[in-house]
Amino acid sequence: MKRTVYGDDHEAYRDSVRQFLVRYFEPRAEHIRADKALPRDFWLEAGKHDLLGLEVPAEYTGGDAGDYRFNAVLIEELAKVNAALASSVSIHCDVVAPYLVQLTTDEQKVRWLPGVCSGEVLTAIGMTEPAGGSDLAALKTTAVRDGDGWLLSGAKTFITNGYSADLVVIAARTSPEKKAKGITLFGVETSLPGFERGRKLDKVGQDEADTAELFLDNVRVTDAHVIGELDRGFIHMMSFLPQERLGCAVSNLAHAAQILVETVDYCRERTAFGQSIGTFQHNKFLIADLVTQIEVTQAYVDQCVAAHAAGELTSVDAAKAKWWTADVQNRVIDHCVQLHGGYGYMNEYRVARAWRDARVSRIWAGSNEIMKELIGRDLGF
Amino acid sequence: MKRTVYGDDHEAYRDSVRQFLVRYFEPRAEHIRADKALPRDFWLEAGKHDLLGLEVPAEYTGGDAGDYRFNAVLIEELAKVNAALASSVSIHCDVVAPYLVQLTTDEQKVRWLPGVCSGEVLTAIGMTEPAGGSDLAALKTTAVRDGDGWLLSGAKTFITNGYSADLVVIAARTSPEKKAKGITLFGVETSLPGFERGRKLDKVGQDEADTAELFLDNVRVTDAHVIGELDRGFIHMMSFLPQERLGCAVSNLAHAAQILVETVDYCRERTAFGQSIGTFQHNKFLIADLVTQIEVTQAYVDQCVAAHAAGELTSVDAAKAKWWTADVQNRVIDHCVQLHGGYGYMNEYRVARAWRDARVSRIWAGSNEIMKELIGRDLGF
Amino acid sequence: MKRTVYGDDHEAYRDSVRQFLVRYFEPRAEHIRADKALPRDFWLEAGKHDLLGLEVPAEYTGGDAGDYRFNAVLIEELAKVNAALASSVSIHCDVVAPYLVQLTTDEQKVRWLPGVCSGEVLTAIGMTEPAGGSDLAALKTTAVRDGDGWLLSGAKTFITNGYSADLVVIAARTSPEKKAKGITLFGVETSLPGFERGRKLDKVGQDEADTAELFLDNVRVTDAHVIGELDRGFIHMMSFLPQERLGCAVSNLAHAAQILVETVDYCRERTAFGQSIGTFQHNKFLIADLVTQIEVTQAYVDQCVAAHAAGELTSVDAAKAKWWTADVQNRVIDHCVQLHGGYGYMNEYRVARAWRDARVSRIWAGSNEIMKELIGRDLGF
Amino acid sequence: MKRTVYGDDHEAYRDSVRQFLVRYFEPRAEHIRADKALPRDFWLEAGKHDLLGLEVPAEYTGGDAGDYRFNAVLIEELAKVNAALASSVSIHCDVVAPYLVQLTTDEQKVRWLPGVCSGEVLTAIGMTEPAGGSDLAALKTTAVRDGDGWLLSGAKTFITNGYSADLVVIAARTSPEKKAKGITLFGVETSLPGFERGRKLDKVGQDEADTAELFLDNVRVTDAHVIGELDRGFIHMMSFLPQERLGCAVSNLAHAAQILVETVDYCRERTAFGQSIGTFQHNKFLIADLVTQIEVTQAYVDQCVAAHAAGELTSVDAAKAKWWTADVQNRVIDHCVQLHGGYGYMNEYRVARAWRDARVSRIWAGSNEIMKELIGRDLGF
Repeated sequence: MKRTVYGDDHEAYRDSVRQFLVRYFEPRAEHIRADKALPRDFWLEAGKHDLLGLEVPAEYTGGDAGDYRFNAVLIEELAKVNAALASSVSIHCDVVAPYLVQLTTDEQKVRWLPGVCSGEVLTAIGMTEPAGGSDLAALKTTAVRDGDGWLLSGAKTFITNGYSADLVVIAARTSPEKKAKGITLFGVETSLPGFERGRKLDKVGQDEADTAELFLDNVRVTDAHVIGELDRGFIHMMSFLPQERLGCAVSNLAHAAQILVETVDYCRERTAFGQSIGTFQHNKFLIADLVTQIEVTQAYVDQCVAAHAAGELTSVDAAKAKWWTADVQNRVIDHCVQLHGGYGYMNEYRVARAWRDARVSRIWAGSNEIMKELIGRDLGF
Repeated sequence: MKRTVYGDDHEAYRDSVRQFLVRYFEPRAEHIRADKALPRDFWLEAGKHDLLGLEVPAEYTGGDAGDYRFNAVLIEELAKVNAALASSVSIHCDVVAPYLVQLTTDEQKVRWLPGVCSGEVLTAIGMTEPAGGSDLAALKTTAVRDGDGWLLSGAKTFITNGYSADLVVIAARTSPEKKAKGITLFGVETSLPGFERGRKLDKVGQDEADTAELFLDNVRVTDAHVIGELDRGFIHMMSFLPQERLGCAVSNLAHAAQILVETVDYCRERTAFGQSIGTFQHNKFLIADLVTQIEVTQAYVDQCVAAHAAGELTSVDAAKAKWWTADVQNRVIDHCVQLHGGYGYMNEYRVARAWRDARVSRIWAGSNEIMKELIGRDLGF
Repeated sequence: MKRTVYGDDHEAYRDSVRQFLVRYFEPRAEHIRADKALPRDFWLEAGKHDLLGLEVPAEYTGGDAGDYRFNAVLIEELAKVNAALASSVSIHCDVVAPYLVQLTTDEQKVRWLPGVCSGEVLTAIGMTEPAGGSDLAALKTTAVRDGDGWLLSGAKTFITNGYSADLVVIAARTSPEKKAKGITLFGVETSLPGFERGRKLDKVGQDEADTAELFLDNVRVTDAHVIGELDRGFIHMMSFLPQERLGCAVSNLAHAAQILVETVDYCRERTAFGQSIGTFQHNKFLIADLVTQIEVTQAYVDQCVAAHAAGELTSVDAAKAKWWTADVQNRVIDHCVQLHGGYGYMNEYRVARAWRDARVSRIWAGSNEIMKELIGRDLGF
Repeated sequence: MKRTVYGDDHEAYRDSVRQFLVRYFEPRAEHIRADKALPRDFWLEAGKHDLLGLEVPAEYTGGDAGDYRFNAVLIEELAKVNAALASSVSIHCDVVAPYLVQLTTDEQKVRWLPGVCSGEVLTAIGMTEPAGGSDLAALKTTAVRDGDGWLLSGAKTFITNGYSADLVVIAARTSPEKKAKGITLFGVETSLPGFERGRKLDKVGQDEADTAELFLDNVRVTDAHVIGELDRGFIHMMSFLPQERLGCAVSNLAHAAQILVETVDYCRERTAFGQSIGTFQHNKFLIADLVTQIEVTQAYVDQCVAAHAAGELTSVDAAKAKWWTADVQNRVIDHCVQLHGGYGYMNEYRVARAWRDARVSRIWAGSNEIMKELIGRDLGF
């Protein structure tokens, strides 16, 4: 069915993103994969092609899109090419950007946003900690008042873009006794003394995304590093969750849909026992099933995108989109691997890498279990 | 999320349907169930309340809705009350009506349509045969030319409304050698000599719907009984499949959604081991999962309803909606039974009857397997 | 693969059971189904054919089998014919019998056991209560000391054989303050004043089994009605759970295996689109899958039967067998329905009734959720 | 439940295998993984510790076990440590060995078997071809008569041990017109002129196993390289399939069981929201489910092992074991990843690598789909 959520301007933007990726990313894809990180050059080029500043007002050199559907189009096109590309870029311009745009002072905006748009200031967000997982109330990183500044100490893990980032939004405990209500956000330049990063983590998939542990050992920052209000970090983070979850959902589904398209092509071309393998009834029914799952889910995701563009998406509906798409993505791509037979297990085949890439979707940004907890709570349980 | 497919006029119609069902159906529900058929009185009242003639032009006393969304609203409200009610009524006014409106002569319209609208002419459709299942090319019922008329002979089975119908659209073979291209449709009054019906079939569920075998033993009809073109019955039937399948999808989902709403309420009220059973984490996560499945699927069904109202729904997209909703419906209601514990196995509980009712959705009107065959074929396999 | 758990003597007993069922049950099956209970005559004949007293010592006219494998053979043969038959008979001779044999005084044995063996004393067990479900600690039925006797008051529900039973083992609270440790078992003749039964419950399936609510209104019993030790009813019940759960597992699997065998035959004979429906690849793979599930599960159930016959089956391993077989049974039979197409929804087909019968397996005798709770606890969680 | 298939001698052998692995493999594990192949040194040590010659008669320096249960014990212990280790070793001593022992001449035995036992002659089997997948009738590699020898040409792919092997059993077409009945097996030394191997394939998992493409370009061999009878290669291969499939099943299950044991330990130790994560009801029920799946399946695999040791295992029952265990393994380990949260996506965690390793089980050695085809055929479909 025809999708109705996007208009001509969104499709024009889609074309420009796609062209950038074809021209810039694809020739370097293999190198990037081997290097386990997007090179700075990529970010700078992406900046030039208007990929990084959609959320940023024009006065700070941003795209000033003012319409989430552009973000969604961007994520779709990135995910169709590569899931790790989607996650790296969307952390920067879809997840971190709202913090830097909506919670910051003018001075902070001037300091950070032009670099965010140009790719000179690469960003990440540091919530998760080694011991804590999804439990923000157990946050251990501390920010202790010291004169007119703060001393930040602690460790963060599983930080996408963490190895390359110039600026990390760090959640730290400012009021130890107040649990979730004692957390403050800080914009921390990674060049500051005491800020260390571990090696790039060796992940099951998402090879192209750098992921790292971060260590803060009495990193001294000023009040000008505080993002938003003191002790309201938890509430700030909550307010941006719908967009983060929806971005995951958009990416999960676009990724799976693209891999399925390619697999359907493969099943048309590959023959066994004298016939195209897609014509075996088992495969035919399976593909019909997978195509249905994708299209049904697309309807919901598009509905969420429209709602979010209208400022009406709830955190709980975004949670539904996130976990459901992660399940669909994993289920669909797993079958796509099987349809490829032995080739599906070879890393030179895209489907094999996609299968490794997809696994993390059910875990990160709030695991599927956490999403169900939230949905259940919303129902009064 | 707010559904966007319906406007104020649709919601006003929904209210009127709901009121009719509360006032008329619900007080008689138990009696209807025991009797295994909707009484004629029900149909006459439904006619008076504008439930039966949505597809019929005003000149033949119909509602002349000209907008499928009214059909969808009607089916939703019926299904929320009772799945068998939805199937009986929608066969009459959603599945058979298009045949009688779009393929008929003026004379036929005058003869049949006012009764269809008033409930005096109850209708059914006779495609399925004992030996054939979903294979229309194997149709055995024959219509043999005899003077200026036709002699119809054969047997039909699993005919919803078959025991009570006054008029049945019968698919019969007029050109034996031409397989699917030799089938013609006839509007056959059940009062004609040679038309016999078997007993009401004893089904697993859908108690309120009468379902019967029909036997035609040289039933003599005239050319004025032919519906549509000679030998083009198969093509006629194909052309109405999107609406039939979509009607199933709308009903399947509305039924499951309503049972889930009631089950969530039950899980709030019922306690075990000192707490509301919905607060057990296993149940909480399960309910979150089921709610998500319903809402995701609703987005797709609504998209299909909008497409069909715009005349753009393909048969294949309708097939996707039909099988997927049938699976969701069965899966959701099965879990709802489990959440009710032992009470879920007692027929006095609605969830128990709903579980029995839902099972046929995966089988009838083209089984889920047939739907996947069609979707797979559409992909070129 | 050849099953190794049974020897020649078990197979000889199997033959005799099978002959009895063919000769006695099958001719009356339809009548029994309509009547929603096994007639007393059936029980008396079953007694004559050595079905009822396997657990009972010879001195009380029992079969004195001393080997659980005979029980298992009996349950298998019953379940192959009819799931409700299996549950009714096994409640009597497999579930209640151990209470009456192992916990009773000589006087009680003399009073009750000959009737148990002959079918003159039909038994049931009354644990479950309307408010309580699986939560025995919440038991509300009370036994209050009154002179040298007890006054029992309360309600029980979902009691298999409850409508016809002569003797019911009732769990009642004797020490209200002691939760699970204040429960005592009583053997209560249903002829006693104050003992009332509700109507036969109208269930989704298991038509042939009578199931009822029981009401006790100051039923006066003596100390000679106490079964086992005072206040140790909970422990007594726990000690017999492995056998009850294993009986369920044996029945669940034998039932599903038999329905699958019949369905495979059906798929050989039934044709569509010009070929046997079992040769369609989708169906072929599905049947291969179902056959595998049955055989894998049979290996485990046989291992449990051997372990129980050796006195070594733990309650937790029995719990695994119970929930897993219930899932397999429901999954397999649901697919068998689908393979029957429309006929699978007609009660005259055995597969349709089997589908309704099977649903309760996941609920009763400790729901699948309760089983998983127990297994999880055993792992230290 | 206690497993009954193994006796004291098997358990003693298990201990010796385990000790070898602890002493020799584990200290080198990381290096082996990085190197993507087992070093020759490993094979030589394994030979010294009686791992390689179980199938080989004593006169050729083999272990002469004469009891498949020793093979099964070996595979279990290897798989518990590392799935790729199990597949590499079992190809050599469990899959190829029967060809070299049962189909060979005395001269061949003398030539090959001592090296097989000592690890000096590492073996592989070359069936699969790039175009052919599971379709042996489409085999393209040819052996053309040339004087008193043969010229072999063709390509093989996905060959476990292919990069390191000294001797490969190659299936080649000797009678082009006779489809499956024109295939002959050859024992081909990889040192022969014209034998080339491609690079080590870059796989999703099973890092420690070397897997390669092999190319034969007019490799000249003599009649003394023919294994078994001319043109009967297909029948020879069929005769060894039960053991190959059973070996897969034993490995699949032992691997999953071990990862589950470790995951249960992890769930005891890891805390979140102030409690051990295994005590969350969702996780508790999930773990109970997984433990049940493993134990149920173990009963079936043990039954197969016993049957094969008695020479009674059919190819079809082995097919059931292979596909079912592959599904269980993948399902269980996928959940184990999820239970590890973000750490489950990090390659330094065993569960992450196990997840990648397990994926191929559903594909190789006859995919799950091929297994179901065979089972279905055996049922007459």
